[in-house]
Amino acid sequence: MTKRIVVVGAVAAGMSAASQAKRRRSDAQLVVFEKGSDISYGACGMPYNLADAERSIEDLAVLTPQQAIEERGIDLHLRHEVTHIDREARQVVVRNHDSGEDHSEPYDALILATGARPRTLERLPHMDHERSLVLRTLQDGRKLKPLLHKDARRAVILGGGYIGLEMCESLQRRGIQVTIIEKTPQILPGWHTETVARVMEELKDHEIAVHTDETVVGAEQAEDGSLAALVTSSQKIPADLVLTAVGIQPNAELAAAAGLRIGASGAIWVNQYQQTSDEMIWAAGDCCEAYHRILRKNSWLPLGTTANKQGRIAGANASGESLRFRGIVGTAGFKVFDLEVARSGLSLEEARKEGFEPVMVTIRQRSRGHSFPGGAPVYVTLFADGPSGLLLGGEIVGKDGAVLRINTLAAALAAHLNVADLQGMDLVYAPPFAPVWDPLLVAANQLIKKIGK
Amino acid sequence: MTKRIVVVGAVAAGMSAASQAKRRRSDAQLVVFEKGSDISYGACGMPYNLADAERSIEDLAVLTPQQAIEERGIDLHLRHEVTHIDREARQVVVRNHDSGEDHSEPYDALILATGARPRTLERLPHMDHERSLVLRTLQDGRKLKPLLHKDARRAVILGGGYIGLEMCESLQRRGIQVTIIEKTPQILPGWHTETVARVMEELKDHEIAVHTDETVVGAEQAEDGSLAALVTSSQKIPADLVLTAVGIQPNAELAAAAGLRIGASGAIWVNQYQQTSDEMIWAAGDCCEAYHRILRKNSWLPLGTTANKQGRIAGANASGESLRFRGIVGTAGFKVFDLEVARSGLSLEEARKEGFEPVMVTIRQRSRGHSFPGGAPVYVTLFADGPSGLLLGGEIVGKDGAVLRINTLAAALAAHLNVADLQGMDLVYAPPFAPVWDPLLVAANQLIKKIGK
Repeated sequence: MTKRIVVVGAVAAGMSAASQAKRRRSDAQLVVFEKGSDISYGACGMPYNLADAERSIEDLAVLTPQQAIEERGIDLHLRHEVTHIDREARQVVVRNHDSGEDHSEPYDALILATGARPRTLERLPHMDHERSLVLRTLQDGRKLKPLLHKDARRAVILGGGYIGLEMCESLQRRGIQVTIIEKTPQILPGWHTETVARVMEELKDHEIAVHTDETVVGAEQAEDGSLAALVTSSQKIPADLVLTAVGIQPNAELAAAAGLRIGASGAIWVNQYQQTSDEMIWAAGDCCEAYHRILRKNSWLPLGTTANKQGRIAGANASGESLRFRGIVGTAGFKVFDLEVARSGLSLEEARKEGFEPVMVTIRQRSRGHSFPGGAPVYVTLFADGPSGLLLGGEIVGKDGAVLRINTLAAALAAHLNVADLQGMDLVYAPPFAPVWDPLLVAANQLIKKIGK
Repeated sequence: MTKRIVVVGAVAAGMSAASQAKRRRSDAQLVVFEKGSDISYGACGMPYNLADAERSIEDLAVLTPQQAIEERGIDLHLRHEVTHIDREARQVVVRNHDSGEDHSEPYDALILATGARPRTLERLPHMDHERSLVLRTLQDGRKLKPLLHKDARRAVILGGGYIGLEMCESLQRRGIQVTIIEKTPQILPGWHTETVARVMEELKDHEIAVHTDETVVGAEQAEDGSLAALVTSSQKIPADLVLTAVGIQPNAELAAAAGLRIGASGAIWVNQYQQTSDEMIWAAGDCCEAYHRILRKNSWLPLGTTANKQGRIAGANASGESLRFRGIVGTAGFKVFDLEVARSGLSLEEARKEGFEPVMVTIRQRSRGHSFPGGAPVYVTLFADGPSGLLLGGEIVGKDGAVLRINTLAAALAAHLNVADLQGMDLVYAPPFAPVWDPLLVAANQLIKKIGK
């Protein structure tokens, strides 16, 4: 009998999973239900698309529904939402949003890729205004882009995380004045103060106003119904556009209602084979947790690259393989104007919470050899466990060669190396790319001195 | 009694060793003999300095003799050559090149940092012409730079290694037409054909003539004594400047004459503590071998970054520490016009010689996310041992983000990871810097398919 693999969600992990399963087992029937109208798009590319007036937002699509059906042999159903999982009967209830009707679909294997949704402030006065938007889906981009073409002049971005920071440059390029509001005492919550200081400098150099420690009270509407201002507990900021980027939460309700185990993070629990607590149900992407190699337990750090990896593994395993997800180490990077910013590993706070005794240094070193023009300072913050020397994490920030350097640390963290191992690494030396002592080696040298071994 | 540490050579490793020893043991007497007149300069930066007519060649100095003496407390003697080591008596014979006199100097610990010297073709007719130069020392740069200011128009570079390739751009920037002559069938001997093909394209795009499989017969002198041409076994190439960059050889004669063990490579044998076969004599830098982490034995791959690391370790250990050099993995990188080129690990040939069964892929992937402008293709050649999956080496070439990516592979090689470990790495994803599937991950994916595990 033909194996029937049902996938819930077709945005990132879902489509990876379905494609992988079909590729490995061409005789299987791959049925994908997606409640929205879009599949597989590069959400992380949205800020760069929005910055470019000439480019269609539809460019972000990486695969069309037609390609999924015709080239990949996937039985794809858009605007079909899975509303219930009957684990006993191995079937799901699907609502067709066009006809409004429900029907049941059997499965031999089920893959959940329900993603995450943005936290919103819509409950606050006027925050549901048509010019108060979130930025998550391609559909959100479709709403926002025309506003940038028209009359937007002053925007307030709620949330000083990296999506908010990336949007600063995009909006400013479109001639829009930007203010960031962050409710905690610093932008980039969880990042080290040295990195935050560099980012704040860069924002200041580009005339972005930043207000931290501010709570949003609501928006204010003019008499003609237009958006007039964003109101916080301490001030009123004139604005004709409000973008909310205050984080996301996992779409785990469907799984929870079916009695699947939900992790401490609120996302679906999975083992390293992307299996949920039901052995015939797999999960992948932003809806579920990911094994963290340093913590040696699950964590929830939703990112596109993890979603793609988990999707492939869930798809392969649902089709009969037994691949293991190696796990994340917390790598992330972004660009804010000319500044490159990246991290990998735990934050100091996470490390302390786990019982480590982190010792830290921040160093400054040129990105290139001193004989080569065009370099810039690179700041490396590195920390390790004092008693054992185990590397725990680091941050790199600078205007040249900062982000790509984080992968060396990511590799070291994945291999559970200690700071002496990093110090001894044979990293490339060539004046156009790196000084004799690469910034990472300088950081390791200094950290070893501080740890005293 | 004051400990007396004598260091032979003050260019790269020697100065690192002396500085490190003095820092760790301020009561020790650090006596450094250098046969030339220069110390610590950035030899790798020479091509970039030469490219810039405005810049003094003296800019390459990173430490002056005065600084070494006054700031670092080192008893430095320039133009003093150590000609003999009496291991029994623990003393060296030193010739003062200004007075021409010899005298003996006792040591408690001796560090050899005698470096390497270029192979030359001076024995061939007219190859000792004043416009036929090698490029190794600051003194060589001092001879070459004035020639570039004057009338040089057509240069022949002998040797298609990376120093020769780096010099192409430097000379062309100075308005000089360049031809490369390489005696083996390909430039970059030992590099993979895919990488070589990209480099050849780049040279062609910049109108650099390349002749491989050509043996140099000599130079030709005009009647007025000026340099006229470079002659090979098959042709005569008009040239008013010849640069020889056909490799280097270790200065191991002093050590050999003292009966110290010389490795199979011809360089001084050392253990991972940089100790020679005499426990009171250490060696560091281009004169000695380096422990290779993949081969798990010594190898000779002279590079500035290795020299600096070994120097620090030799200096620390001669002063009483017991630090271990972690070893090299064969990382190197360079730039040829707009192309970035890097490698790490073994070459295919080396791997086969060691009994591995290398399986290889070459992939092409964009350097950045598809939504972000300015990326370029990155070509990754990756190979691993078929039976075990152990990563053995790789090469990366491209016009954007190629060289810095090699460090991730270097880290993986240092940790003896296999290809599945690399595939599972949590590398950074951010459209301005990397696609969802980083080129290294794509290469690992493809290699796993080929290995079949």
